Amino acid sequence: MNENSSPVPCSPARRSPLHDFLAPASIAIVGASADPTKRGYKAMVGLVKGDYRGRVYPINPKVPEILGVPTCATLDDVPGPIDLALICTPAKTLPGLLEACGRKGVKGAVILASGFRESGPEGARLEQQVLDAARAGGVRIIGPNTSGMFNLHHKVNLLDLRNARPGDIGFISQSGNMLLALVLEAEHNGHVGFSTYVGPGNQTDVGFNDYLRYLGEDVHTRVATLYVEGFRDGQRFLEVAREITPVKPVVVYKSGATELGKKAASSHTGALAGSYAMTVDLLRQVGVSVVHHSDEILPVAEGLALMQQARGRRIAVIADGGGQATITSDRLSESGLELAELSAATRKRLAAILFPQAALANPVDVAGSSDADPEVLARCVEIVADDDNVDAVFLVGMFGGYHIRFAESLLGGEMRAAEAMIELARASAKPLVVYSLYAPVKPPALRRLHEAGLPVYASIEQAVKVLEALAERGLYLQDRHGQPLQAGAAPDEAMQAMFARAQNEGRDLYEHEARALLRTHGVAVAEEIVAHTADELAVAIERFGDQPLAMKVVSKDILHKSDAGGVKLNLVGEAALREAWAQILAGCRAYDADADIRGVLLTPMARKGVEVIVGVVRDPIFGPVLMFGLGGIFVEILEDVAFRAIPLSRRDAETMVDQLGARKVLAGVRGEAAVDKVALVELLLRVSSIVSAYPQLSELDLNPVIAYPDGYAVVDARIITNRTVASS
Amino acid sequence: MNENSSPVPCSPARRSPLHDFLAPASIAIVGASADPTKRGYKAMVGLVKGDYRGRVYPINPKVPEILGVPTCATLDDVPGPIDLALICTPAKTLPGLLEACGRKGVKGAVILASGFRESGPEGARLEQQVLDAARAGGVRIIGPNTSGMFNLHHKVNLLDLRNARPGDIGFISQSGNMLLALVLEAEHNGHVGFSTYVGPGNQTDVGFNDYLRYLGEDVHTRVATLYVEGFRDGQRFLEVAREITPVKPVVVYKSGATELGKKAASSHTGALAGSYAMTVDLLRQVGVSVVHHSDEILPVAEGLALMQQARGRRIAVIADGGGQATITSDRLSESGLELAELSAATRKRLAAILFPQAALANPVDVAGSSDADPEVLARCVEIVADDDNVDAVFLVGMFGGYHIRFAESLLGGEMRAAEAMIELARASAKPLVVYSLYAPVKPPALRRLHEAGLPVYASIEQAVKVLEALAERGLYLQDRHGQPLQAGAAPDEAMQAMFARAQNEGRDLYEHEARALLRTHGVAVAEEIVAHTADELAVAIERFGDQPLAMKVVSKDILHKSDAGGVKLNLVGEAALREAWAQILAGCRAYDADADIRGVLLTPMARKGVEVIVGVVRDPIFGPVLMFGLGGIFVEILEDVAFRAIPLSRRDAETMVDQLGARKVLAGVRGEAAVDKVALVELLLRVSSIVSAYPQLSELDLNPVIAYPDGYAVVDARIITNRTVASS
Repeated sequence: MNENSSPVPCSPARRSPLHDFLAPASIAIVGASADPTKRGYKAMVGLVKGDYRGRVYPINPKVPEILGVPTCATLDDVPGPIDLALICTPAKTLPGLLEACGRKGVKGAVILASGFRESGPEGARLEQQVLDAARAGGVRIIGPNTSGMFNLHHKVNLLDLRNARPGDIGFISQSGNMLLALVLEAEHNGHVGFSTYVGPGNQTDVGFNDYLRYLGEDVHTRVATLYVEGFRDGQRFLEVAREITPVKPVVVYKSGATELGKKAASSHTGALAGSYAMTVDLLRQVGVSVVHHSDEILPVAEGLALMQQARGRRIAVIADGGGQATITSDRLSESGLELAELSAATRKRLAAILFPQAALANPVDVAGSSDADPEVLARCVEIVADDDNVDAVFLVGMFGGYHIRFAESLLGGEMRAAEAMIELARASAKPLVVYSLYAPVKPPALRRLHEAGLPVYASIEQAVKVLEALAERGLYLQDRHGQPLQAGAAPDEAMQAMFARAQNEGRDLYEHEARALLRTHGVAVAEEIVAHTADELAVAIERFGDQPLAMKVVSKDILHKSDAGGVKLNLVGEAALREAWAQILAGCRAYDADADIRGVLLTPMARKGVEVIVGVVRDPIFGPVLMFGLGGIFVEILEDVAFRAIPLSRRDAETMVDQLGARKVLAGVRGEAAVDKVALVELLLRVSSIVSAYPQLSELDLNPVIAYPDGYAVVDARIITNRTVASS
Repeated sequence: MNENSSPVPCSPARRSPLHDFLAPASIAIVGASADPTKRGYKAMVGLVKGDYRGRVYPINPKVPEILGVPTCATLDDVPGPIDLALICTPAKTLPGLLEACGRKGVKGAVILASGFRESGPEGARLEQQVLDAARAGGVRIIGPNTSGMFNLHHKVNLLDLRNARPGDIGFISQSGNMLLALVLEAEHNGHVGFSTYVGPGNQTDVGFNDYLRYLGEDVHTRVATLYVEGFRDGQRFLEVAREITPVKPVVVYKSGATELGKKAASSHTGALAGSYAMTVDLLRQVGVSVVHHSDEILPVAEGLALMQQARGRRIAVIADGGGQATITSDRLSESGLELAELSAATRKRLAAILFPQAALANPVDVAGSSDADPEVLARCVEIVADDDNVDAVFLVGMFGGYHIRFAESLLGGEMRAAEAMIELARASAKPLVVYSLYAPVKPPALRRLHEAGLPVYASIEQAVKVLEALAERGLYLQDRHGQPLQAGAAPDEAMQAMFARAQNEGRDLYEHEARALLRTHGVAVAEEIVAHTADELAVAIERFGDQPLAMKVVSKDILHKSDAGGVKLNLVGEAALREAWAQILAGCRAYDADADIRGVLLTPMARKGVEVIVGVVRDPIFGPVLMFGLGGIFVEILEDVAFRAIPLSRRDAETMVDQLGARKVLAGVRGEAAVDKVALVELLLRVSSIVSAYPQLSELDLNPVIAYPDGYAVVDARIITNRTVASS
């Protein structure tokens, strides 16, 4: 169990303005109604029958009272101050109402109506009017197009969801159905209730980052849980999440998992950015627990709310059936978790209490040893929890059902085992996760665990997802949280001037300029020269001798140099260079007769190694993002790449390399030496520092970089300029 | 719903001998006990309290009666015939008891005891004694080391599982806990009960293939469901499954998903064979529905038992919330299902009954249109089911909970909608799968669907797995079932003699022999010559002129030719050949001074194309298996390969190519032409026919085969001989 039994308040200095109206002392219901099918009635019922202690002002000019509460004709007629206004009237009434809210000093307005941005340009204009009115009057907006909100610890239940129990889960969801589903799931199979729910709707004013800040500060919320269809300011969200996740767990389900970014892609990085995979990587970078299936949201949120994180991935499994032990091993391995290697001492202690036929290697199969004495299970749990090689314990099988399956007399032993496990879970720094096939029956021992705040899962698969989340959170807090982020480089004057030239000429950087920028900031780039005429080719021979050279066209108009015949490789001697020059010029002219060709770049051929790609985009949602992957089919076909928000920490860079599916290739296949990971990590950090220093850089593609057992070589560099950013 | 409302009997000619004792008219309990904690008591209770109508004979020399049933001292004392004996006594008593069973004419014995093969060599000897005694007496054995069996339709409940309801699911499980878990899950959240359960234990006599045959014939079983840790005769299992799956669905969960074959690998194919991925491919080849997670077993089995298969992958989604519509789209896409493209007529019909803000493109989001009239959902279901572009309908959202969420008065509409859906499901050839977030509440409309045999799922993820299984089954029955299998080639006399020579010399085939075999049976292999001396190299120049050649050592002792320096490429002219000859000889001598070197093989270099690999192993469990994949990292790092049991059909071969993750590479990347899929399929079929013709062939590796837009070239061929099979 989580040792922080009391909720952790954040620094009051950072107090979110949302507290003022999400825990309101007074509420006005604009469009309050006596018709039971209307939202303006449901909200009234939710407040009146839900024992809300603040003031309620139904606004309705046509009836004198609703549910015994006297109405006001308009907001202006309300006698006292109003913290929160729930507005149930149609879209067109909103601009006027927001002006009224402003006059009245309303702090926040929940706008249910749809018919705004999501309905077309006219709706978008209306939405802007509403926002303008709200800003003018100092009113914050939830929605529009929201399913509403509740704050159960303050008995504010605008949705009238009577089956929602107060509890630890703060939930922000762009799907109202997901809220209903979670509330029902929690009621029937769950362990915890809810604190605050908000449907952010169109996020016209208040967005996910604001809600996350609020949940992070809210003393009643132990886990912030978000169902996200789209962020509006993802970069800010990452900043807030980075602050909140060390204090309390943040769980995100992001829909649109199969939708790739739709941007017209001018680079490999651009083509892969904006994807679901990118969003997941960035969220994980700041310690968010990402769940991929909707039926894992509640189990994972509950597990993180109720249990201590694990210090690592090494799981000890105690099972009372060989089949489920095997299933568990399969699922742990698929989730990147490990079966802990139990110490000899642990095995000896287990052997002393188990039958000879028991399997003492993890997964431990008690093989009938507990059939007549379920307390044996608790003792096994205690023994493995005591092993330094174990980060978390997973009890798998029939616990809770022994008195049903074997003999009623075993109930006492089950209850004693439950108490022992509860005490252990309270005392230990290691989480105990319980799966029982008797969970649907809710037998006494499982009810006892439940009441003591120890969750019991009804599916091995779900329980393993919880273990995975506990381990990832533990590892994040130990290894990644708080690591210093790579500082921006000091911008170089000559480079600033170079950017300014390119921007003035309305073009991206030439490759030799891109290489100069990289070189200036410590990136290893092979030497190159640019020849503007065929006669200048001789300079290359002088400089590089008989090394085989690569020749590439220099032209702002030719984006895909290979496609235009603008690249020739392995050239030796002046004759070969002159022939290649002629071919490149002819090819590029054929490709684009009007292309402005400035010459060719010449550089020695790189020796063979492993091709990797490093890229940067400035994502419209998440800001600057670094991408790393292996070249060729790995990036093109398999999309096996890692993303991190810039700036990143050294640990972030290291984990980029480690998370690739193809990391085996970097570690050396067919007896080849491993590539120099330290050098690659250094490269990633330097790219991060360059991007932070030059807002003029819009996209970057180093493709390929050749990685060697000793260092790397950047073979091709492309930098797209941002023509709207002035060079300073 | 499944239109075969009455179960489908199989041909009586194939009657399984298991019927004789799995539906017994009389049962003896050897080791029957009056102690409530003993299995010999539980079985008595299960039969007596479970109203078993046949005769029960408790065998116990110490007490006169158990639960009012008079005991016999020994099996020999039983007055009448015995169909089934349940033996609860320890392992050492078994040989004698089996003899007694034989004397008594017992048809089948269920042996609970452990302490046999699984416990070591002594146990294995005991197990053999038991088997010998059983064979001598004509007794079939279930187990030993089994959890037991039940046949609920005949009220035979040897496990005394009182909460197991009679129903459609036949379950064979090597895990007793999985049975308990499924029974509890079915009781609390399921829709169907169970017919026969057997724990096959050690499968000493009766194995999975026998049980599958029995379930296939059993009139009470609508879906055969198997939890398998290991097959003993996988090849026979595939044969039986191929016969059963067209008649009724077969669901398999195979544990050990993450355990790779442990064989010492002498080939790439050998290294990958025996894996979980191979087992899954082979099971799917014969129409088995494979589930990967234990919590999907029951939902998928129920779905297949109760619903019609889908004709294809095109799913129409009707949702009453945008968020869940998006989640559903994500999951469908991940499962290889498609969102059906609704016809203009369908959209028009939908538009006529839905609000203007509804999304008419699939997924259909009714956007509030059903909030006041849930029958709208049933009408939407009807409309999309009527569209020829739709193979299955998926209803997603709040159905069943409208009267809870919105107004109690909506219950009537929900019940009418349920009736309409039931009628539609009965009349339509397309399945209707329902997810409701109100499933945990079990409200009236969902209870009505449930009682009418229309399952309602509580998780979008599980429902999508059911849709996937329905679509895969439908496509199998249409496309793959009943396709003619590739016949074996007519064995060639010269090739038989060649195998005999190799076998006599205790060696594998030389590469030129392997190439000759392939060529004899119509596989496209480039010409080669073998030079036994340096002077014979001139012959290669005569034959191949100035084509660049590959030279490879010919030696039975050098398995990995490249590693030994035994391969030289791109050789032009006699001087180059002679130099390569000298290098190869020197290299191979250095590698293995005693190697018997017979010369070198010379063949023209293949032109560039896409490298693929074709392999064959004779798997100890599943028999001859064909493997296909892309070469290089795809097979080595990514293990992206497809397996099929030999012989295979043309469709099987086609789907091998289509299922690869890297199929995009075969279809042409970076503007390259697609490879010749027809030729590759032909190659796979020819390899199948060769393997069927020559039992002397043990393993085969064609690595690489170069695939071209027009045909292919086998570049390296290796055939391992089976030295225990005589050439005929």
